[in-house]
Amino acid sequence: MLKSSVSKLFNIKYPIIQGGMAHVSRAELAAAVSNAGGLGLLGSSSMTPEELKEEIQQTRKLTSKPFGVNIAIMSPEPEAKVDICINGKVGIVFTAAGNPKLYTKKLKDAGIKVAHVVPSARLAEKAVQAGVDAVVCEGFEAGGHDGIEELTTLTLVPLVRRAVGNLPLMAAGGISAGSQIAAALALGADGVQIGTLFIATKECSAHSLFKQKIIEANETGTVFVARKYRPQRILRNPFAEKIAELDAKGASADEIRNAYGPERGRKGAIEGDWENGYFNCGQGAALITEIKSIAEVMESLVSGVRNGAKLVSLRGMK
Amino acid sequence: MLKSSVSKLFNIKYPIIQGGMAHVSRAELAAAVSNAGGLGLLGSSSMTPEELKEEIQQTRKLTSKPFGVNIAIMSPEPEAKVDICINGKVGIVFTAAGNPKLYTKKLKDAGIKVAHVVPSARLAEKAVQAGVDAVVCEGFEAGGHDGIEELTTLTLVPLVRRAVGNLPLMAAGGISAGSQIAAALALGADGVQIGTLFIATKECSAHSLFKQKIIEANETGTVFVARKYRPQRILRNPFAEKIAELDAKGASADEIRNAYGPERGRKGAIEGDWENGYFNCGQGAALITEIKSIAEVMESLVSGVRNGAKLVSLRGMK
Repeated sequence: MLKSSVSKLFNIKYPIIQGGMAHVSRAELAAAVSNAGGLGLLGSSSMTPEELKEEIQQTRKLTSKPFGVNIAIMSPEPEAKVDICINGKVGIVFTAAGNPKLYTKKLKDAGIKVAHVVPSARLAEKAVQAGVDAVVCEGFEAGGHDGIEELTTLTLVPLVRRAVGNLPLMAAGGISAGSQIAAALALGADGVQIGTLFIATKECSAHSLFKQKIIEANETGTVFVARKYRPQRILRNPFAEKIAELDAKGASADEIRNAYGPERGRKGAIEGDWENGYFNCGQGAALITEIKSIAEVMESLVSGVRNGAKLVSLRGMK
Repeated sequence: MLKSSVSKLFNIKYPIIQGGMAHVSRAELAAAVSNAGGLGLLGSSSMTPEELKEEIQQTRKLTSKPFGVNIAIMSPEPEAKVDICINGKVGIVFTAAGNPKLYTKKLKDAGIKVAHVVPSARLAEKAVQAGVDAVVCEGFEAGGHDGIEELTTLTLVPLVRRAVGNLPLMAAGGISAGSQIAAALALGADGVQIGTLFIATKECSAHSLFKQKIIEANETGTVFVARKYRPQRILRNPFAEKIAELDAKGASADEIRNAYGPERGRKGAIEGDWENGYFNCGQGAALITEIKSIAEVMESLVSGVRNGAKLVSLRGMK
């Protein structure tokens, strides 16, 4: 059993968090991860408050274990979602993409454990000041919207550990294997948050093409685009190539925003439109070779951590 | 004692390699690292063949331990440098930035151990086909010239491990602390190559301003520039800002090459010209807080590996 301050904080068996991703983190996935000993999160940024309410109820039907909700503060109606979590007696909220001062106190006053996602030690310090219970630091290799700092998980985790003292810390970005969880623990993390790997599972509601493209992605399968507008790592598809070309030409933030237009995330993740959608995806996709069940994924991660720990002693210091 | 296939291959105590960096990896530094139990490398890409010959002789005066030479295949006169290593009975050569097929056989026929530096699993496979004895994989967080793939050390090491089978593998990129060495071992590496940290030492011949700026660098202290011309991570100084602006404007490879002009590396590393030089530097600079002796650095790294290994068992799996 993986014991850490993260597993204690959330009362879970393994300190392995399934990231609350837009479009693809719904009840069935979150419940399956929680049932397998991790922590499942609903991704509320693509939901209306009413949809979030329904997903919370649905998740509760599927698991009696702890689960949580991710709220991107810059997504529509964040406060309504905060209220739904409070009224729905959700125990855990991960906030991201915005100022942690806005809702941390309100959530904590309602007895909710609050973690905040950051791309830098500077923003980790702000999260600590806001009173969060835990921090997730997310590196450049992560899928979806990333920090402009471009700090990689390997350098970010030790920096954030310095910044947050003993606060429970989760590493995120590029993690698709147990050996990488062991690495994150060596760096000072108490747990990890994983996204892409959980999309490529039977329980995830993502379009089957999305899952297949994750399996097919090799080491050049993702690209970091839109640095001027809203930096994002996505699968290298026709849409990504179009944005990458605009970036290379020196296009302005406005031009890139216009090229994005609306609903690209839904077109990709839900409709499986390879030409016109985008598909948030981390560099760790290159390590994923098959679509598994959540139970199989968790088992593989846990045995991988053991192997990674062994490698440190075998190859490392006695 | 850190025992691994890398320490066995090079007959060294710790599988910690000091990268052979242009301008700043000369006899005193390489000998000090080798004397402290690691492997020091001379950086030949900024040397003439004659200078390399002198540095090899000088290194031999300063240490009786194994040391090596880094040869960037795309730097001037690589074959003459290969011949100097052979004639000078250098035991170890690290090749980089070019096709490993060119000199691997010649070096190995002369009894020299050959490692090749790669930024991707694809190029690691090519190095294996060329017959190298070991591979260094270098992530996006590394200082100096990096791969266009932008793969981070955390994702690159497991990918390259898959690609090279049991071949001795060193991780590089962003490593400035023992915890990161432990992480690299967990990921499947048998050792590490470190650059920036060894610049910030008493024994390094780099200009004192360079060392000071590494100490001062925080998490936004380096920037990855010149993607279209020759991708490079450098300290964020006036020159770096100028190139970053050209990148953002969509400048062509030729425009960026012209803005570089000649001798920028020397201006930075040797002359300490903060305005006009460039300073190769990895993201790990943010973890470096003081200029130490090589002996102190090695001691700190080795105890840091132990701590990292402990964290994996404490926070990780029992």
